[in-house]
Amino acid sequence: MSNEIWQLQPYLKERVRLVDSALDRYLPGAEMLPTRLHEAIRYSVFAGGKRIRPILMLAACEAVGGEIKKVLPAACAIEMVHSYSLIHDDLPAMDDDDFRRGNLTNHKVYGEATAILAGDGLLTEAFILLSNKDVWGDVPVENARETINIIAKSSGSRGMVGGQVVDMEAEKTPIDLPTLEYIHTHKTGALILAAVEIGALLGGASVEQRRALCRYGEAAGLAFQVADDILDIVADQSQLGKDVGSDQQRGKATYPALLGLAGARQHADELRKRALSALDIFSASAQPLREIATYIINRPS
Amino acid sequence: MSNEIWQLQPYLKERVRLVDSALDRYLPGAEMLPTRLHEAIRYSVFAGGKRIRPILMLAACEAVGGEIKKVLPAACAIEMVHSYSLIHDDLPAMDDDDFRRGNLTNHKVYGEATAILAGDGLLTEAFILLSNKDVWGDVPVENARETINIIAKSSGSRGMVGGQVVDMEAEKTPIDLPTLEYIHTHKTGALILAAVEIGALLGGASVEQRRALCRYGEAAGLAFQVADDILDIVADQSQLGKDVGSDQQRGKATYPALLGLAGARQHADELRKRALSALDIFSASAQPLREIATYIINRPS
Repeated sequence: MSNEIWQLQPYLKERVRLVDSALDRYLPGAEMLPTRLHEAIRYSVFAGGKRIRPILMLAACEAVGGEIKKVLPAACAIEMVHSYSLIHDDLPAMDDDDFRRGNLTNHKVYGEATAILAGDGLLTEAFILLSNKDVWGDVPVENARETINIIAKSSGSRGMVGGQVVDMEAEKTPIDLPTLEYIHTHKTGALILAAVEIGALLGGASVEQRRALCRYGEAAGLAFQVADDILDIVADQSQLGKDVGSDQQRGKATYPALLGLAGARQHADELRKRALSALDIFSASAQPLREIATYIINRPS
Repeated sequence: MSNEIWQLQPYLKERVRLVDSALDRYLPGAEMLPTRLHEAIRYSVFAGGKRIRPILMLAACEAVGGEIKKVLPAACAIEMVHSYSLIHDDLPAMDDDDFRRGNLTNHKVYGEATAILAGDGLLTEAFILLSNKDVWGDVPVENARETINIIAKSSGSRGMVGGQVVDMEAEKTPIDLPTLEYIHTHKTGALILAAVEIGALLGGASVEQRRALCRYGEAAGLAFQVADDILDIVADQSQLGKDVGSDQQRGKATYPALLGLAGARQHADELRKRALSALDIFSASAQPLREIATYIINRPS
């Protein structure tokens, strides 16, 4: 397995470079008016994200033999949505975090009002990009429409934003495993599933392939969050770039809190296996997705 | 003119009813999970808005002989975008307003975190609706894509959100008329122009008609804001539902501050005339748009 991870690293590095360069191309330049807003947007988008969602989208597209250039705009859009959600999550009225990935959070640098508006602008920018005819090439407009619908639904009040609300309500209140799963399938899982589903759609997946990839996306999305909860407890601060145990201090419900650390690890591994078995119908083309599923639960931060 | 306004009232009332009932149908029900979030969203959407943007969209569609049922989803989407922007504008980190239209602002009722997320959810809901195949009937998907693009661009960092940032930066700093016009063509004007342009697009306007309606939309959008600044000074609190002179107290640049009250009134009337002259190529079909231009600068609140 350490061998698999070793092989995955150059692949991830190349994909991060590809996504970063496309994001740089698609986002308004920092010199555009209002410059402070565009600086704030770029500050958070280029703050060292791992680009897991776009990379999963590209890998799902590859798994079904699609061309990755056709998913690159949607891959960037989903990263913009993810980045906006982090800016808003960190706000004083929400998680009130000063640091993320070792850097000051957006509102600590630009102030709260600009951070709120940078998040709003970034969310909107995702839909500007997705509805821009010029970026889609020969992709049918109906596929662009469906992509917009998948991203919007997965990130809205019945998806990511809904999960965030329930997560906040659950602070300091004892919750059970089904509620915790609701939070995470919505807060984190929905956008990861959307990434994989859009990769399948734009890659030209068959109905069976798309269904299999969605099963993969569901399991991988939840595994990602379980691993995140475990990392919050065991990582050094330097690895995570935020205060260790901050979820615990805040009284947040986590998998280790409900299942114990060993139980949470076992749960993550079961989810990894579920993700892998969903890929049984694919041959070598799904190898990146397989390795990413393992990487997700063993990642250093 | 008072006769014109009198005729307009039943028209506006009927249109508000039409838009409200469509919004009720398109928005997630208050009983949907997470219920507190959907309640918060509905609280602000149904807080007595005048529905100026959707009404302008419907009227622009009518002006070119289009069917208003084809624009109703987009009309609701633009109102969702407008409502989200009010929720975020009122936040403590932004304008810090306790009342809007005589009601407590969203964060005063639901708390700051939920208000931020209700705004985020509402903005996203607009794009869920616009990308929902089922609401478009026989409108070509290419028109849906263009509608999404117009709404996203007009409300993003180079539109409404950008205007809001410059507005905040301008507080307590003396600014000139060009900066004030920049703020308002972006903060308020962009979405009003978008409403009219989408009405033209989905109504099947010719290139010449669309251009004329955009000229109307630009002038009407700016007139709306000039009138808003005047109202902030002269209206009773009961009419406006917020503290009178609150812009002044906050040190906000306004048209009356820069041009004097009489100068601002004259400017509003010039903009009204510019809006009307853009409609010269239309006959009776544009009568609602004409009356709305007059209503905008003479409205009681």
